[in-house]
Amino acid sequence: MSEKTKWGNFFEDFRVGQTIAHATPRTITEGDVALYTALTGSRFALTSADTFAHSLSFPRAPVDNLLAFNIVFGKTVPDISLNAIANLGYAAGRFGHRVYPGDTLTADSTVIGLKENSDGKTGIVYVRSCGVNQRGQIALDYCRWVMVRKRDPASPAPETVVPALHEAVAASDLVIPAGIRVEGYDTTLSGSTDLWDDYRVGERIDHVDGMTIEESEHMMATRLYQNTARVHFNQHAEKSGRFGRRIVYGGYIIGLARALSFNGLANAFSVVAINAGRHVSPAFAGDTVYAWSEIIEQMSLPGRHDLGALRLRTVATKDRNCADFPYRGADGSYDPSVLLDFDYTVLMPKRPGKSPPPE
Amino acid sequence: MSEKTKWGNFFEDFRVGQTIAHATPRTITEGDVALYTALTGSRFALTSADTFAHSLSFPRAPVDNLLAFNIVFGKTVPDISLNAIANLGYAAGRFGHRVYPGDTLTADSTVIGLKENSDGKTGIVYVRSCGVNQRGQIALDYCRWVMVRKRDPASPAPETVVPALHEAVAASDLVIPAGIRVEGYDTTLSGSTDLWDDYRVGERIDHVDGMTIEESEHMMATRLYQNTARVHFNQHAEKSGRFGRRIVYGGYIIGLARALSFNGLANAFSVVAINAGRHVSPAFAGDTVYAWSEIIEQMSLPGRHDLGALRLRTVATKDRNCADFPYRGADGSYDPSVLLDFDYTVLMPKRPGKSPPPE
Amino acid sequence: MSEKTKWGNFFEDFRVGQTIAHATPRTITEGDVALYTALTGSRFALTSADTFAHSLSFPRAPVDNLLAFNIVFGKTVPDISLNAIANLGYAAGRFGHRVYPGDTLTADSTVIGLKENSDGKTGIVYVRSCGVNQRGQIALDYCRWVMVRKRDPASPAPETVVPALHEAVAASDLVIPAGIRVEGYDTTLSGSTDLWDDYRVGERIDHVDGMTIEESEHMMATRLYQNTARVHFNQHAEKSGRFGRRIVYGGYIIGLARALSFNGLANAFSVVAINAGRHVSPAFAGDTVYAWSEIIEQMSLPGRHDLGALRLRTVATKDRNCADFPYRGADGSYDPSVLLDFDYTVLMPKRPGKSPPPE
Repeated sequence: MSEKTKWGNFFEDFRVGQTIAHATPRTITEGDVALYTALTGSRFALTSADTFAHSLSFPRAPVDNLLAFNIVFGKTVPDISLNAIANLGYAAGRFGHRVYPGDTLTADSTVIGLKENSDGKTGIVYVRSCGVNQRGQIALDYCRWVMVRKRDPASPAPETVVPALHEAVAASDLVIPAGIRVEGYDTTLSGSTDLWDDYRVGERIDHVDGMTIEESEHMMATRLYQNTARVHFNQHAEKSGRFGRRIVYGGYIIGLARALSFNGLANAFSVVAINAGRHVSPAFAGDTVYAWSEIIEQMSLPGRHDLGALRLRTVATKDRNCADFPYRGADGSYDPSVLLDFDYTVLMPKRPGKSPPPE
Repeated sequence: MSEKTKWGNFFEDFRVGQTIAHATPRTITEGDVALYTALTGSRFALTSADTFAHSLSFPRAPVDNLLAFNIVFGKTVPDISLNAIANLGYAAGRFGHRVYPGDTLTADSTVIGLKENSDGKTGIVYVRSCGVNQRGQIALDYCRWVMVRKRDPASPAPETVVPALHEAVAASDLVIPAGIRVEGYDTTLSGSTDLWDDYRVGERIDHVDGMTIEESEHMMATRLYQNTARVHFNQHAEKSGRFGRRIVYGGYIIGLARALSFNGLANAFSVVAINAGRHVSPAFAGDTVYAWSEIIEQMSLPGRHDLGALRLRTVATKDRNCADFPYRGADGSYDPSVLLDFDYTVLMPKRPGKSPPPE
Repeated sequence: MSEKTKWGNFFEDFRVGQTIAHATPRTITEGDVALYTALTGSRFALTSADTFAHSLSFPRAPVDNLLAFNIVFGKTVPDISLNAIANLGYAAGRFGHRVYPGDTLTADSTVIGLKENSDGKTGIVYVRSCGVNQRGQIALDYCRWVMVRKRDPASPAPETVVPALHEAVAASDLVIPAGIRVEGYDTTLSGSTDLWDDYRVGERIDHVDGMTIEESEHMMATRLYQNTARVHFNQHAEKSGRFGRRIVYGGYIIGLARALSFNGLANAFSVVAINAGRHVSPAFAGDTVYAWSEIIEQMSLPGRHDLGALRLRTVATKDRNCADFPYRGADGSYDPSVLLDFDYTVLMPKRPGKSPPPE
C-alpha cells in the first residue's frame, strides 16, 4: 500500500471541533447544468431559462440548489465518508448565495459530534459541511452524520458528543435571494397556476411519473459531482459486496425526486432548506423511482407578502407508484418500497393581492 | 388524484383555433450542444466549430436545428401528447432564425384540426407548434398530428376539421439565414467535396454506419429535451404495457439518422424544412439504427447562385444495413426494419462558377 | 455502394510524406469539459476550477490535455484508421499550447512510415498527427502507427520506411505553459501534499479504485470525440465480429486510467508528453478498470526550480485490482488483465526552497 494513496479517514481520525478543508475546487458551468437536466429531467422554469430568471430579477438562471448540494457533498466524501458504512441523515441545511455558471465552489467540514457504537467497530461522525463560492460567500451549509469504520477496534472511544440539531430551519433563518421580485411571475411558463395559497398543511400530492435508473446514469451523475465513494462504481468489487451490485448514490435519488415533484409543485421554484433527510433503503440500477409529497408547514416569510415557503416531505419509492402515498406502517417502520424520506423547504410565490391564510 | 397534478389534455379538451402556450422556457447552452454531439455523434462542421461558422458569416456555431426542434417538441408534450397513443406525422416544418447558445426558446401550439376516430375512443389532433426565441423571433414552426385518447368515450364528437397541408415546403418559403456566404466554404473541413451540383434526383445513398441505442442514451436525450412522455422512462409501468419495455423517443431516431447521414451528405450543412415525417415503427434499446437517403428534389433558391437546397428522404432502419435501401414493398407496406420515413430539406453549397443543372 | 460515401483509406492509399487535412473542426466548450468529468471522474484541480488555474497564472481552467488528445485523435480516424485492424502504438506525443473552452481544433496527419506485412494483406502506417488551434498554434502532436487492410492484396508493396522515434520526449523538448507560476500552489485544494521531490524512480503506486464501464458511457465519450470507428458503436455488426461485441475505444481507457491515477498522483497537474503507449488488450462494457503507476524518470526542467516533470508508466487492468502491480511475466508477455501500457510525462510542483535530489 503506497503511502501516497488516500484511504480516507477512519472513526478515530476525527476530533470534535476539527475543520477539514476538502480538495478539488469546482467551477460549475452550463455543461454541468445540461447534464443535470439530462440526468434528472428537471423542468423548473427558474433554473431552465435565463429569461424566466430575469423576470424574477435574478441576473441569469441560477444552478439548481440540489446540483450545488451534490457537488459540495462530493467534495466531502474523500475525507468524511470514504470508510462510511451508512449515510445516516441530514439536518440544518440552508442555501445562501445562489450559484451561477462560472462560480467556483470549495468546501470544508467541521466535526460537530462523535459517538462510538456499542460494537466498538464503528462510530457516528457528525459534520457541518459548508460550500463557499470564489468570493467567500456561503452557498450552502448542512449537517450530516455517517457511520464510519474504526481502523483499529482497540482504539479508545472518544467522549460522546451529539449535537443538538433543530427539527427544521426556521422561516426567519431562510436566506431569500436579495432583490428577487415575483410580481411578474408567469404561471403559464412555470407550468402551474397553483401558488402558495393553494396548498394546505397535510395535503398530499402524488407526482405520478416514474423514472427507471440505469447504471451509466447514476455513475455519470456521481462522477459529475466528483464523488468518489467506491460502492457506486466498481461492479468487480461490489459483486462480492453487501448487495452484490453497485449502489446508486443517494443524492441522485434526491435530484430525481425533486425533478419528479415538478408535477404538482411546479411553482416551488427554489429549495432553500434541507430540514432532515434519510436514505431509507438503497437503490440499484433497474429500479423505477416514484415520488409523492406532503405539505408539512406553510410558512410566511418576514417582510415578504409576495412570497412564502412550504416545508415539504417528499418520499421516493422504488417499483411502486405513489397513488396511495406509501410511507410508514402503524409500527413506524417504512414501507419496503421507500428509498428516501426528505424534509425540505421551498419558496413559492403567493397569490397576488391575497393575504396569507391563518396558520 | 391530486387536482394539482397534470394529467395532460384528452381529445375532448381541444378546440380548433385554440392556442396553448407551453411551460418551461429553455435557455440552450453549449452544454446542450456537447450532449447532442455525445448522444448522436453529429459531425456537421457548421454546428461543430465556431471558426467554420464564421467562414460562412454566422456569428458563431448555431445549434443543430434538430436539437432546437426536439427541445420545442418536448415543450409541447405535456399539453398535446401526454395522452397520445401515436405520433402520426409531421408536415410544414420550417426553420427560421438560427438558435445560438444563450438563446431561450418558448413554444406554443395552435389546434388546426380535429377528427374523432370511428371507434369513439380516440381522435386525431392536428397542431401547429411554434418555437420562439427571447426576441420574439420564430426559430421554427411545424405541424404534427397525434392520436389522443378521449377522457370520456361518451362525449360528443367535434366537427371534423382536417387541415390542408402542402406536400413540401416550397423553395420560396425556405428561410435562408440572412447574410450567409459560402464562397469560403472549405470542403476539406466539411468532410466531402460533393456539392449540390453533384447530386441527382433519384440518387440513393447508403450511410453505411450503424449505431446501437442504449436505454440511458435515449432517456438522457429525451430528458435533455424536457420531454415528459411516460413511455420513454418507466420500465416498471411499461413492462406490462404494449411492448413490455420503454419506447425510444422518435425525435432521438431523427437525430441519429441525421448524424449518420453525414457519411454521404456532409455538405448538407443545415436542415431548413421538415416536409413530412412518420415514425413507422417503435425503436427499443438494443436496436442498431442504420440509414439511407434519396434525393427527392433539387431546388434552386431565389436570388442565390451559390447555394441550393436538396429535398431528401432519409429512411432509418433497425438491425438491417441499408445497402439495398429497404423501404416499401410492392403493396406500399413498409419493410419491417423501417423505423423512420423522414422527408426534409437541407441547404448545400453549389459548385462555384457552375450553373445549376437543368431540372 | 455510393461514390459519395466515405469508406476510409486502405494501406495502398498512403504515401510517405503525404499530409492529410482532416475534416470537422471542433470548438471545445464547457459542455465537453462537463461530459469529460461525468465520463471519467477526473478530479485534478487545475482542470476542475478556474480559481485554481488563476492561482497558477493560467487565464482560466484549461481543458484536460487528454480530452484534447482524444478530440484530435477522433478527427484522424476517418482518414487514417477506418480500415485499421489494430491501433499498435503511440510515440513522441507532445502538448503545446493549452486548450481552453472556446478554442477550435483542426487536425492533420503526415505519413512518416509504411511497412507492408509479410501476409501481403495488411501493412503498418505510421503517422504524425497534429492538432492546431484557431490561431494556428500547435496544441499537440503525436505519432501513432496502425495496422491497415489493403484494398487489393495484389497491389505492390511500397518501399519500407520505418521512422526513428525517440524512446521518450526529452525534458528540453517539453512545452511548459508560458508564465505559469506554482508558488501559490495549494496542496489542500489539489488533494495531496506529495510533490515532485517526494517521488522516487522505481516507486510504484496502486491507484486503488476500480471503475466499471457501461456501453453508453464509452459510446458517449467516443461520439463526443467524433471518432467514427465502427467497432465501438454497432452491436448488430459486431455480434458476428471478432469479439462478438463492441470494443471500447482505447482513448477512453487512457482517460479513465488518468482519472484513477489522481489517487496517488494528485499533483500531476498536467500531462505534457506521451512517450509511448500500447493498447495491450481490448476492453468491453462490463469490465472494471483499475490502474497503477510507476515512476520511470524524475526530470528537472531547464530554468525551472519550482517545477519538475515525472515520466510515468500507468498500467490499466481489467477485473483485477492492482495491489501487486500486474504487468509482464518473466517472458515479457503481459499479464492477461492488462489493457493499457501508457508511458507519459506529467508536470508537478517541486517542494518550495528545496533543491532537486541527485538523479
